Amino acid sequence: MSQPRPPRGTFITFEGIDGSGKSTQARLLADHLRGEGRDVVLTREPGGSAGAEEIRALVLQGDPDRWSAETEILLFTAARRDHLERTINPAIAAGKIVICDRFADSTRMYQGLSRGDLRTTVDQLHTLMIGREPDLTVLIDMDPATGLARAKSRQTAEERFEDFGTDLQAQMRAGFLGLAREFPDRFRTIDGDRAMDAVAADVTRTVSDHLASSG
Amino acid sequence: MSQPRPPRGTFITFEGIDGSGKSTQARLLADHLRGEGRDVVLTREPGGSAGAEEIRALVLQGDPDRWSAETEILLFTAARRDHLERTINPAIAAGKIVICDRFADSTRMYQGLSRGDLRTTVDQLHTLMIGREPDLTVLIDMDPATGLARAKSRQTAEERFEDFGTDLQAQMRAGFLGLAREFPDRFRTIDGDRAMDAVAADVTRTVSDHLASSG
Repeated sequence: MSQPRPPRGTFITFEGIDGSGKSTQARLLADHLRGEGRDVVLTREPGGSAGAEEIRALVLQGDPDRWSAETEILLFTAARRDHLERTINPAIAAGKIVICDRFADSTRMYQGLSRGDLRTTVDQLHTLMIGREPDLTVLIDMDPATGLARAKSRQTAEERFEDFGTDLQAQMRAGFLGLAREFPDRFRTIDGDRAMDAVAADVTRTVSDHLASSG
Repeated sequence: MSQPRPPRGTFITFEGIDGSGKSTQARLLADHLRGEGRDVVLTREPGGSAGAEEIRALVLQGDPDRWSAETEILLFTAARRDHLERTINPAIAAGKIVICDRFADSTRMYQGLSRGDLRTTVDQLHTLMIGREPDLTVLIDMDPATGLARAKSRQTAEERFEDFGTDLQAQMRAGFLGLAREFPDRFRTIDGDRAMDAVAADVTRTVSDHLASSG
């Protein structure tokens, strides 16, 4: 006499350098899964909850050097904590599929690598205040020059993250590929340097495999 | 042939329950030391630097329950890091006396105690991201009922910290006295339940003793 199993939520993140197409792919995946009748929450970082969006504005607006790397990490962690409590955890508890455009891996790269050697600090802070890792992380891998050209074609007021040269983009790409090797259980790397539909088909297959295997 | 010793800054904090008179005493001490020709920076937390004041506004304005205790601790720690980098550390490095109305001990009490048992989290975060402790902490001890009556007579828009009953004020007082026992080297407790001038005379004597002994 087995009990009916409660719905099991899934937490999927998209990572990659700017211009990799990860935000588009996150949206396409959400559309696809909703088309299958699944309950999906599509969200993003920094932000994703009312409080976290306010913190995002505080970090990203104004002089890029107004915050030190350490203060910025604390603010992003505060935003992530709020996002987790108010958006991600309740949705997962309700059995939904949460798709998040960027999560802690972006902090590991952008704050942990590009603004000094703070990866250890980022990791300690994550362990202390966040804890949760995604069930599946889709890394959209992309040639740095192509990604940079794409990102520059859609600059916004929050262009800080795109305000990097090709060298730094190459360093970030290598960093994300390094994370994929560090966390092979949850990372799946997909070649983003192809037509959008071809990439989307790979993403759908990868996520379907994950959902099938995790029940 | 000894080198002239560089000026040595001092970091003095004031702690106590709301209505204890600590802000007044911090100001009186600053005036007194300036009268002696000393270079003094009088500051406060949360806030004390441009960025930290923005974070203060984010935390203290709006619905008191908009942030969880953990997110609030992260935001206060971000504000403290900014305050330390931009205001406190440069002043101490320049040989000044920094007087700060509230510092990490207030977080240990208000976030670590009143909003759940988060003292360990507060301490770990402090060790990881702040590190610095004051050279001297002046605890203005005060009867909770008297403190509460005083605090209520000057309520502002940021009245969250005063929005406590006498029981919680009593708990906070006991908490601060507990910190004084935990850190006897830097804490000096002064009875604040007397005329302002009598309290100020004790504060001046305590600080003069500290400055004389620390050279």
